[in-house]
Amino acid sequence: MQFELTDEFIEQIEQYIANNDGDALKGLLDDFHFADVAELLQELNHEEATYLVKLLDSEITSEALMELDEDFRERILDNLSPSEIADELDEMDTDDAADIIAELDDDIQKQVIDHIEDEEHAADIVDLLRYDEDTAGGLMAKELVRVKETWTVAGCVREMRRQAENVTRVHSIYVTDKHGKLKGRLSLKDLLTAPERAHISDIYIPKVDYVNVHTEAEEVARIMQKYDLEAIPVVDDDGILVGRVTIDDIVDFIREEAEKDYQMAAGISQDVEADDGIFKQTRARLPWLLIGMFGGLGAASIITGFQEMMSTFPKIIIFVPLIQATAGNVGVQSSAIVVQGLANDSLKGNLFARLLKESSLALVNGIAIALVVLIISHFVFFTTYLESISIGIAIITVIVLAALIGTFIPILLDKRGIDPAVATGPFITTSNDIFGILTYFLIAKLILGF
Amino acid sequence: MQFELTDEFIEQIEQYIANNDGDALKGLLDDFHFADVAELLQELNHEEATYLVKLLDSEITSEALMELDEDFRERILDNLSPSEIADELDEMDTDDAADIIAELDDDIQKQVIDHIEDEEHAADIVDLLRYDEDTAGGLMAKELVRVKETWTVAGCVREMRRQAENVTRVHSIYVTDKHGKLKGRLSLKDLLTAPERAHISDIYIPKVDYVNVHTEAEEVARIMQKYDLEAIPVVDDDGILVGRVTIDDIVDFIREEAEKDYQMAAGISQDVEADDGIFKQTRARLPWLLIGMFGGLGAASIITGFQEMMSTFPKIIIFVPLIQATAGNVGVQSSAIVVQGLANDSLKGNLFARLLKESSLALVNGIAIALVVLIISHFVFFTTYLESISIGIAIITVIVLAALIGTFIPILLDKRGIDPAVATGPFITTSNDIFGILTYFLIAKLILGF
Repeated sequence: MQFELTDEFIEQIEQYIANNDGDALKGLLDDFHFADVAELLQELNHEEATYLVKLLDSEITSEALMELDEDFRERILDNLSPSEIADELDEMDTDDAADIIAELDDDIQKQVIDHIEDEEHAADIVDLLRYDEDTAGGLMAKELVRVKETWTVAGCVREMRRQAENVTRVHSIYVTDKHGKLKGRLSLKDLLTAPERAHISDIYIPKVDYVNVHTEAEEVARIMQKYDLEAIPVVDDDGILVGRVTIDDIVDFIREEAEKDYQMAAGISQDVEADDGIFKQTRARLPWLLIGMFGGLGAASIITGFQEMMSTFPKIIIFVPLIQATAGNVGVQSSAIVVQGLANDSLKGNLFARLLKESSLALVNGIAIALVVLIISHFVFFTTYLESISIGIAIITVIVLAALIGTFIPILLDKRGIDPAVATGPFITTSNDIFGILTYFLIAKLILGF
Repeated sequence: MQFELTDEFIEQIEQYIANNDGDALKGLLDDFHFADVAELLQELNHEEATYLVKLLDSEITSEALMELDEDFRERILDNLSPSEIADELDEMDTDDAADIIAELDDDIQKQVIDHIEDEEHAADIVDLLRYDEDTAGGLMAKELVRVKETWTVAGCVREMRRQAENVTRVHSIYVTDKHGKLKGRLSLKDLLTAPERAHISDIYIPKVDYVNVHTEAEEVARIMQKYDLEAIPVVDDDGILVGRVTIDDIVDFIREEAEKDYQMAAGISQDVEADDGIFKQTRARLPWLLIGMFGGLGAASIITGFQEMMSTFPKIIIFVPLIQATAGNVGVQSSAIVVQGLANDSLKGNLFARLLKESSLALVNGIAIALVVLIISHFVFFTTYLESISIGIAIITVIVLAALIGTFIPILLDKRGIDPAVATGPFITTSNDIFGILTYFLIAKLILGF
């Protein structure tokens, strides 16, 4: 079942495109899974990709388009006429279609919508455009199977056969009252095992998880994960059933969020990928490097401030990189643990207990590292006893401080409603660099007394 | 629908447990969702939690147990008799039950299995224990709905009513030949809309994605995500259908993998959480701090080697923290982009093109930062022209080098079959620290000529 896109295959496709041999291409690709078509499109340039999108059945290309990188998709859509785009949207679920429309320029949006054949489909798409993309409304699709509580099982099956045509996957059947208010749910399994004459009101499950159109996407993801849901109905402020969010949208959302946090920790501020252009990448990376730079300049000021020490105790300066690296590493470790705990909702106990625990942990690590450094500095770098002791005590103090800062800042940001993930990466490293070096010099001064 | 666990509620539960008031507890908790029960259990100590697990219906507690942290679950299971554990496993899906059994001590495993009432269920669990937990066999459940291609739709519906009893969610109906070989699939929707007299062989979809029991979990996740599958059948080496993996297991797997990569980037080597004990956390964190420490000692040697410079050009040393921070930050950015690209399979083009691109990007960032530092060093720190120019050129060189190292190492590791994520975080920071400082001094020496 493994699909492997070989270079030879891609070359052959490119040859056919160059020869404008549509029949050969259709013969080759018509049986392809949309995800494989998407993989192929990504390997072509955007003119070749556009050629294939125009050529192949829009039942396949519409789904393949959804799998492409946004930038690449945009370049293909730029080459399609409004009516060609509308053909693709006609085949898409409303949530995907709305996402595509939202990416288009305002003037083209209207033209595309006017070209969509199925008027109900078009109206549903327009309706979805109202919602913020990071809410349940922005994630939901209008396609779902709904039955009224007054129906019989037999009538329900008849009605469902009609509705199911438009729904790719029937997860749950939602039960509403005559006004469309969500009352409960019914699984296909329940329907299959119920007597034909029973009324829906007798067999449906009145307990149903749901979210409001304005519920934040993150909360939707949390609920669906916690309760192991594969689909969740979405209601408006009056309790009317208006759509459903399915697990595949949430899987993408979870992956994107994890990637964003990961990038933030690495000092990359936008959602960039390895293949994005240099300008976009610079915009995402340079700001963090500048923060690091100002940290470095701050450290330069501190060293300048302790200049006399450099002449009296020249050995002290050589351990600055060690102090800096350790402070940075400890800070990143502590903040990552806290940020992940916050994201998971698994952080228990109060702030004080948490800080106490991190300090004890830091103390254990600090003493271990201080002992090694103390011995090596004395026997390898020939520092005096007092110098070695200063370095050892400074390392322990810096590690404990770095752990406290790394723990405290994300919790503080979270309490103020700011994404704590910004506090990982260069931000925490930089502040710990400065605090670490300052602490180191202060302790050395205290002990060596210059 | 929001469930909120208040402190008052927890206190009340603890009070009832202290009073051994089982009836009150049952009255309060019997309607609870298992995920909410799990949340409550996490807030109690393990003795209270054990009390509740013994008290409440194992239909609920079995699922709640699966949601708990492994450590906490283990402590509860330690307090249960083999027959009590077997009662819980009786209610679980085979994949979950096998995971629990695998966590138990060898001598208890056999006792628990002997106490499982449903012998077929017990045999299925034992069978699953054979597979490595990071393979499709380790993720799959035995529960699925299978029909033979020779059956009629009506017969199929009858048979399915029987099978569906044991299956929590019917995603797809799998079609096999008379020997049990996987032939295709059928959706509930198809079954619902097919004529009653049709044969399965006429309506089933012969194209079906599947994986082998030995397929790696990562590959299963990739396939399910790529093809938007909610369940995938698993076959043995003879093509016999033996189980299925469902998307909820994959969601957990994806989240865990993302967390692992994130932790690796932060210099934490095991799967630890904020609430794990100090010893476990030290084991996960100290090794990375030691790597950073040796890097710092390496930097100390380099500075010692350039000691004459410290007396002739004392200004040069004060920019070491800046060089170090910048080298570290650039390296982490580059490696994070590459690691993510590798994880996503979105990395295109050959190694040379990739390195060329990262160098150009680094050059742009490097020139920007070098200009700022050059001006500030000259006008704020009063470096000479030559010193300022040395610093500027060193920064550009260090940034380009750091980007190249950050790009090259993960790709190299990946080619050798090592998880490239180890190359993010402290590892890349440390090597860049050393390279960066060495490069800085060498360039300064070249230009200032001491």
